[in-house]
Amino acid sequence: MRVAIVGATGAVGQELLQLLSERDFPITTLTLYASARSAGREVPFGDVTLAVKALPESGELGADVVFSSAGGSVSKAHAWRWAESGAVVIDNTSAWRMDERVPLVVPEVNAEAALAHQGVIANPNCSTILALMALAPLHRAFGLTRATVATYQAVSGAGAAAIEELEHQTHMLLHGQKAEPKVFPHPIAFNLFSHDSAVGDDGYNVEERKLLLESRKILGAPELRLSATCVRVPVVRAHAEAIHAEFARPVREAEAREVLCRAPGVKLVDDRERNHFPMPLEASGRDEVFVGRIREDASLAGGIALFLAGDQIRKGAALNAVQIAEYLLARGALPARA
Amino acid sequence: MRVAIVGATGAVGQELLQLLSERDFPITTLTLYASARSAGREVPFGDVTLAVKALPESGELGADVVFSSAGGSVSKAHAWRWAESGAVVIDNTSAWRMDERVPLVVPEVNAEAALAHQGVIANPNCSTILALMALAPLHRAFGLTRATVATYQAVSGAGAAAIEELEHQTHMLLHGQKAEPKVFPHPIAFNLFSHDSAVGDDGYNVEERKLLLESRKILGAPELRLSATCVRVPVVRAHAEAIHAEFARPVREAEAREVLCRAPGVKLVDDRERNHFPMPLEASGRDEVFVGRIREDASLAGGIALFLAGDQIRKGAALNAVQIAEYLLARGALPARA
Repeated sequence: MRVAIVGATGAVGQELLQLLSERDFPITTLTLYASARSAGREVPFGDVTLAVKALPESGELGADVVFSSAGGSVSKAHAWRWAESGAVVIDNTSAWRMDERVPLVVPEVNAEAALAHQGVIANPNCSTILALMALAPLHRAFGLTRATVATYQAVSGAGAAAIEELEHQTHMLLHGQKAEPKVFPHPIAFNLFSHDSAVGDDGYNVEERKLLLESRKILGAPELRLSATCVRVPVVRAHAEAIHAEFARPVREAEAREVLCRAPGVKLVDDRERNHFPMPLEASGRDEVFVGRIREDASLAGGIALFLAGDQIRKGAALNAVQIAEYLLARGALPARA
Repeated sequence: MRVAIVGATGAVGQELLQLLSERDFPITTLTLYASARSAGREVPFGDVTLAVKALPESGELGADVVFSSAGGSVSKAHAWRWAESGAVVIDNTSAWRMDERVPLVVPEVNAEAALAHQGVIANPNCSTILALMALAPLHRAFGLTRATVATYQAVSGAGAAAIEELEHQTHMLLHGQKAEPKVFPHPIAFNLFSHDSAVGDDGYNVEERKLLLESRKILGAPELRLSATCVRVPVVRAHAEAIHAEFARPVREAEAREVLCRAPGVKLVDDRERNHFPMPLEASGRDEVFVGRIREDASLAGGIALFLAGDQIRKGAALNAVQIAEYLLARGALPARA
């Protein structure tokens, strides 16, 4: 398979490289693209070193599959052109997620939707992926009608520079000095703030709207009601979410636990005695989404409350994209022209 | 007024001293008590220095008002004895909060309940106080029926040693070293975890149960349904909470905003254009609870979602206690024997 990674030097690009190597993705040629600024940089891949190229403004990438994670504007400008030249584009940005031509896929939830692609497949927003890893199996079993979600989002969602900002700012603060925020609008060291995306007239920010609209599309549940409060916390790379869910019929704790226990990609971490539940630190670098605090909602008979943590860069982005490619491969749908 | 502070060297005790000085509480004698280990330490109060005494195991404290914040076991053992000797005990611990003889008071919400005390008045849990500063005025206006709460709790709730643990652990981690957790069961640096209190058979931890039971008692609303997920985050001293609230009648955003705008002790921080909402960093050291992200619940017609931040040591503990004393004083109910 001829593979191209666009945005290869970013946090998600680096994780893609790691995963393609780890998972023995069948690669014949691997080409790495980034902005002109990063071109020429050398990055390791398995035992070899690859040079990063500047992304060409036109022409083909000569790839069967393109992982696009260089930002929404790059995907907006180029994704369909790459697709027309025969590549399957797996887009990690928000550019095409809600486009009717584009499947929005979490392989454990709606893998088969990927087969109907027209050249571009979208990877959902990280918070959406993590929430649905728990909510989708519950939805299938009991019919999800409403959910409220409060997120605890790691800085990695804003890229490698954001991780550096958290560490630098924290270091300065511990030495009694201030560091002005650059990546984020507010200080992040020992602080937290409402997600740094634009807020609409209804009071919801873009991240929260993604959670609602993408969940509806992925679950094929246009009536789903969901309200999220998205919050950035001083954590490096795994998100957490506190969720209250309501269903078409009353659900007992044991039933919910049984479903989540069997859910692919989910690891139950729910030890009440040892007070051991999902934590970003333990979910970091892991493929599974950790789910725990499963309990009957004390405020609503038949509702379920839970808490989860998942690696934002891995399952929340790069891993999900690689899984989509692996699924197409397993179904004989890659290369697309085959 | 003869004032005694029990637990004077702790985080809340230190804040009580600061507040009594700042707010010119009318003191004739101020006596500071702590454990035998801390006895003899000298602490500043305004322009003078006071020596901390070991808490006597028996006998009176010779005070008209006792602020008790040395932990539940101390209050359990001594509070009623101090009260019988004529003091009004304002208890910062969880020892007597749910006792029928004991008023549980947030002055902005149910100040008058304090007047019916029998010698002991309880200060609610910090998360409860902060939540009710926003929910109580909404309840009065619209009739709160159900709330889901996700907390983002600073480490200060676990005392001064917890603050030190966060800072030390973070410092070590930034230098590539590990520091074993001592105060908390899990690492807190760049991590978060479900609140470190015991979890019951229903899956709720003690902190979450406090939020439910204390809210019912303070609001006089035994039917109130509330489900909380309490989470410890790497923030120093202000808690935040994401709340979804449901009411007896549909509430419009403008109505909720109008009520919260006039609510005593509440400061609206709700600038959508500048993406400026309540943050622990800005709420730290402040008396008001910051409330923002006020919006109609996208998942429930007539519901309201909001986000708040408040200083856990100040309004969440010490300030609330001092306000109770000030209220009694203003109503001529201090000293109790007058």
